[in-house]
Amino acid sequence: MSKAKAGKRATLASLGDQLGLSRQTISNVLNNPSIVSEETRNRVLEAIEASGYRPSAAARALRTKRSMTIALRLYPAGDGIEGALMDRFTHAVTEAAQAHGYRIALFCADDMRSEADALVELHEEAQIDAAIISDTYPGDPRPAALWEAGLPFSAFGRQWERPEAPHSWVDVDGRVGVRAAVEHLVAAGYRRIGYLGPRVGGASEDRRAGCLEALAECVPSVGGDQELTERDTPKAGAAAASALQERGVTAVVCGSDAMAMGALSVFGHRDGHAPIVGFDDTPVARAMGLSSVAQPVEEAARLAVELALAAANGEPSRQLLIEPELVVRRLEAFAR
Amino acid sequence: MSKAKAGKRATLASLGDQLGLSRQTISNVLNNPSIVSEETRNRVLEAIEASGYRPSAAARALRTKRSMTIALRLYPAGDGIEGALMDRFTHAVTEAAQAHGYRIALFCADDMRSEADALVELHEEAQIDAAIISDTYPGDPRPAALWEAGLPFSAFGRQWERPEAPHSWVDVDGRVGVRAAVEHLVAAGYRRIGYLGPRVGGASEDRRAGCLEALAECVPSVGGDQELTERDTPKAGAAAASALQERGVTAVVCGSDAMAMGALSVFGHRDGHAPIVGFDDTPVARAMGLSSVAQPVEEAARLAVELALAAANGEPSRQLLIEPELVVRRLEAFAR
Repeated sequence: MSKAKAGKRATLASLGDQLGLSRQTISNVLNNPSIVSEETRNRVLEAIEASGYRPSAAARALRTKRSMTIALRLYPAGDGIEGALMDRFTHAVTEAAQAHGYRIALFCADDMRSEADALVELHEEAQIDAAIISDTYPGDPRPAALWEAGLPFSAFGRQWERPEAPHSWVDVDGRVGVRAAVEHLVAAGYRRIGYLGPRVGGASEDRRAGCLEALAECVPSVGGDQELTERDTPKAGAAAASALQERGVTAVVCGSDAMAMGALSVFGHRDGHAPIVGFDDTPVARAMGLSSVAQPVEEAARLAVELALAAANGEPSRQLLIEPELVVRRLEAFAR
Repeated sequence: MSKAKAGKRATLASLGDQLGLSRQTISNVLNNPSIVSEETRNRVLEAIEASGYRPSAAARALRTKRSMTIALRLYPAGDGIEGALMDRFTHAVTEAAQAHGYRIALFCADDMRSEADALVELHEEAQIDAAIISDTYPGDPRPAALWEAGLPFSAFGRQWERPEAPHSWVDVDGRVGVRAAVEHLVAAGYRRIGYLGPRVGGASEDRRAGCLEALAECVPSVGGDQELTERDTPKAGAAAASALQERGVTAVVCGSDAMAMGALSVFGHRDGHAPIVGFDDTPVARAMGLSSVAQPVEEAARLAVELALAAANGEPSRQLLIEPELVVRRLEAFAR
């Protein structure tokens, strides 16, 4: 119904008909202009301009062997609090790719192996020039699978184990973030500080270890305490925060904003100042006025795109660690 | 660096070399099998299976004149509270398209006109078969521009004005949602109920008018009150909620969860039961335990994909209005 004008688009064949030239001659003007006479070339180019003809993306892809496309998996939205980080990453990757003349092909996958399989298939079909993977973890099957398949890619998230696949990655140094959180709480007068986070490896483990290390340095006479939970939710955070409170802890650094929301409900606040710092600076933290460690997601996305395109050009791999920043806030809605 | 195996992919030419056949014969087996002898056909097909050859997406797109791609603009993340709705839509569109064998091409645009221009260009370059636009509003330039360009598309969001472009759309009936919110507050014993929302047209205006209509019917002796704000933020919501409270209003239906967070800080709660209903059931509402009207975003996305593909197939346009659902909650973190 809405294709009324679809048939009017100029093609090589329709241009040829119009000018009394073969389709091949028109094609030569576009692809091998030196073998066509100047007179013919000018006739064709004028007709092309007048017609609004544009070479189709498919024809260009066949000619250049470039799809000008980067693949990115869209993760399930999840419970929503922490999902916001990946959504920001997706936005920023799309904008950065577009600035390089590339488009993002989005796809869904059930798990990490399906993601790797889908990427390899997209590459074999020449639908993509490169891929970006994210949220790497110890035992992640994707880097080795993509490297083995010869697919140019970059990762948002470091290589957590022995680097069998020396690919390019960019990651955020979580230790710098939790150290800033510890220093903030110490400066506010707290000494008995605990860490609260989900019991998973990779980035979370890095935050936990970094926090206890910073506590051992900043309040050596007291040291740190910790509670790890199976789930990364406000409810799990509240239960674990109660346990910390019963052991005398008065302030908490959290591995996520979801946990921090739960800790907030246990520890409360004084005049809007809460003894809680979250991680990831999600919309929930911004809406509530919760202090949180902000990852420079937009910078990570820009670098991930540059690394993926460098890989597609056969350039050497690079590994980049960038720094997060603590955002200190006062609880908006309750500071009255 | 990571392209070690890229050169090994079988092509029509390498298969031909291997079998002592021309590239054209191999191509005929794939595209015009009836003109090739059965013996040759079987030899080629066996070699293809053994080699793992797959036709390139670009070659297939040229042959079928289908890119198997739907374009979708990725909106800026915004302040994050309400942005979650569009992120859910993007996820669901990607999954629904994939179920139909289609991929999503993401792009960014600065405004609605640039979005329409980018879509028309993608279509002219034959990069996409169809498009999905969202968040339509009165005076939206996109439907007419896409219709005029002959681009098959569907919209998430109705045609708010006179239907010059009778395209397909799916929308959520906001009036049903605010009516359920009013009935919930009335059943909880509240009579002096107000509406609080951002002063913008389209869906917000529909919610406002629907709420006052429902209040006139459900509490005819009292009627409704309202406050509209310039910005859709918790802060603006808190100020407007105070104004309603000073006029004797005791419960509030909000046009967004951002506004509802502000209203919550003014009206408080009794034992976790707040006299506030938000709209859009965002992660913030779920995290806080705020009652909110949930749009069936996944259903809308599935229908938008079906409508866009139907348009690409030249089928007649359809317009679908689906119903939201009130989710009643108790404030998690404060019900102690």
